[in-house]
Amino acid sequence: MELWYTEEHTKNVRFSIKVDKHLYSSQSEFQRIDIMESYEFGRFLALDGCMMLTEKDEFIYHEMMVHVPMATNPEIERVLVIGGGDGGAVRELCRYPNIKQIDLVEIDQMVVEACKTHLQQTACDLEDSRVNIHYEDGLKFIRRIEHVYDLIIVDSTDPFGPGEGLFTREFYGNCYKALTDKGILVNQHESPYYKVYAQSLQKAHERVEGYFPVIKLYNAHIPTYPSGNWMFGFASKVYDPIKDLDEDRWMALDIKTQYYNADVHKGSFALPNYVKKLLMKA
Amino acid sequence: MELWYTEEHTKNVRFSIKVDKHLYSSQSEFQRIDIMESYEFGRFLALDGCMMLTEKDEFIYHEMMVHVPMATNPEIERVLVIGGGDGGAVRELCRYPNIKQIDLVEIDQMVVEACKTHLQQTACDLEDSRVNIHYEDGLKFIRRIEHVYDLIIVDSTDPFGPGEGLFTREFYGNCYKALTDKGILVNQHESPYYKVYAQSLQKAHERVEGYFPVIKLYNAHIPTYPSGNWMFGFASKVYDPIKDLDEDRWMALDIKTQYYNADVHKGSFALPNYVKKLLMKA
Repeated sequence: MELWYTEEHTKNVRFSIKVDKHLYSSQSEFQRIDIMESYEFGRFLALDGCMMLTEKDEFIYHEMMVHVPMATNPEIERVLVIGGGDGGAVRELCRYPNIKQIDLVEIDQMVVEACKTHLQQTACDLEDSRVNIHYEDGLKFIRRIEHVYDLIIVDSTDPFGPGEGLFTREFYGNCYKALTDKGILVNQHESPYYKVYAQSLQKAHERVEGYFPVIKLYNAHIPTYPSGNWMFGFASKVYDPIKDLDEDRWMALDIKTQYYNADVHKGSFALPNYVKKLLMKA
Repeated sequence: MELWYTEEHTKNVRFSIKVDKHLYSSQSEFQRIDIMESYEFGRFLALDGCMMLTEKDEFIYHEMMVHVPMATNPEIERVLVIGGGDGGAVRELCRYPNIKQIDLVEIDQMVVEACKTHLQQTACDLEDSRVNIHYEDGLKFIRRIEHVYDLIIVDSTDPFGPGEGLFTREFYGNCYKALTDKGILVNQHESPYYKVYAQSLQKAHERVEGYFPVIKLYNAHIPTYPSGNWMFGFASKVYDPIKDLDEDRWMALDIKTQYYNADVHKGSFALPNYVKKLLMKA
């Protein structure tokens, strides 16, 4: 038997992976949720037919979302994760003994439950005593918060469907308000390569721009995401992700990583000319 | 009509792109050569069913192969390109007025001719007066050369088929001999992500290691190559690609690039931990 999962990266580009078993499928109030076992990438989660993570390469995405802000300000204590119901970002955060509170706001409870059952690699720390899960729309949750979090991580889906509100001006403004005086906002920022993603990247960049004095983009190689080149936004009230990186202090924490290190941290902010041009046009 | 070109990145991963026209197909003495027109990537060249370049992303590969060594030592005058019959590396080299001689050693004349007819985007400078094309096996060509080139670029296919000899110890030793006292060798180094490519990367790294005092690897995002993450080897008798980079001098040349810039140059040498681990095991 041959079972292939195929994703359209654009209408003219398809990425297909061979599947052993379709472990889980459901239609929640918000989206279709699938978890499959593949030969090359281990288990993977797809929401509305887009791969969100695979066991083989999720370390890249989750390490880069978490360790870049944490190494910039190791004094972060209170963190809000919006989206990220798979638990991958929470797992990386839980490695910092300094962190006292992790609020996870996930709109879709079924995602969390499916990952707890089938994706323990990422969901493994969702029961940590510092973690509070709120099943709620992140856009609404953040409206009532003021001056609480040192770090907000927006681990959203693409800006179509349930993730759409997490790419709006209103949302970024509320993130600013919800952050403490030295707060940092990190959000997944799509890919610069294929047109439809590049347009989302431009919009996200343009909308976050008015609020924060420091705004930089960084990128990573994520083989299962469209084009393999994925970007993150780093927006901050005070800290510069390169000037304020304290390598020695982060090294002293002795957190073992598979992708992240201080050189990768700095190097990830080096953007190719075509990406800079995209951002100037944003 | 729907016409799809599919490439197996591993036996469990397929990358497919929609094709408008199959422009050229031949079987040379060495390999099967195809050029097609695709919707997403423009024209592309495939050798033995592996995409070598597409009009949309070839700038990344060719800029990173050429500008990294050229910005490290802008005094380079004599260059040998082995492989690279598409002309992309030669095109980037021709932008340096300082360069006096570019020898292109391509085993397969039919590749050059096909590219001259159908891929002018890369083949455009093959008629430059500084360019000499030798239709010969690079492995044999280099045996008789001593102390001639300031830069050797190995723009080979994968280490299966006609490119195999370009990944051997003998070849790297001969490259060392063919280089001048301050010579630099840059070679395409496969991908660290999928096992079969990672093994080739390890072998290439291990074999080049004995000869050169400076050996560093760097990487780039190349969406149409397996995993989207591709590596290059920088081996040198004297120059360090980071310490000896003279940004201002390179900027003064006013070479317009779409991917390369001095930050990307430095950032591309930052390797993720899992890649470092691969290289330590090599």
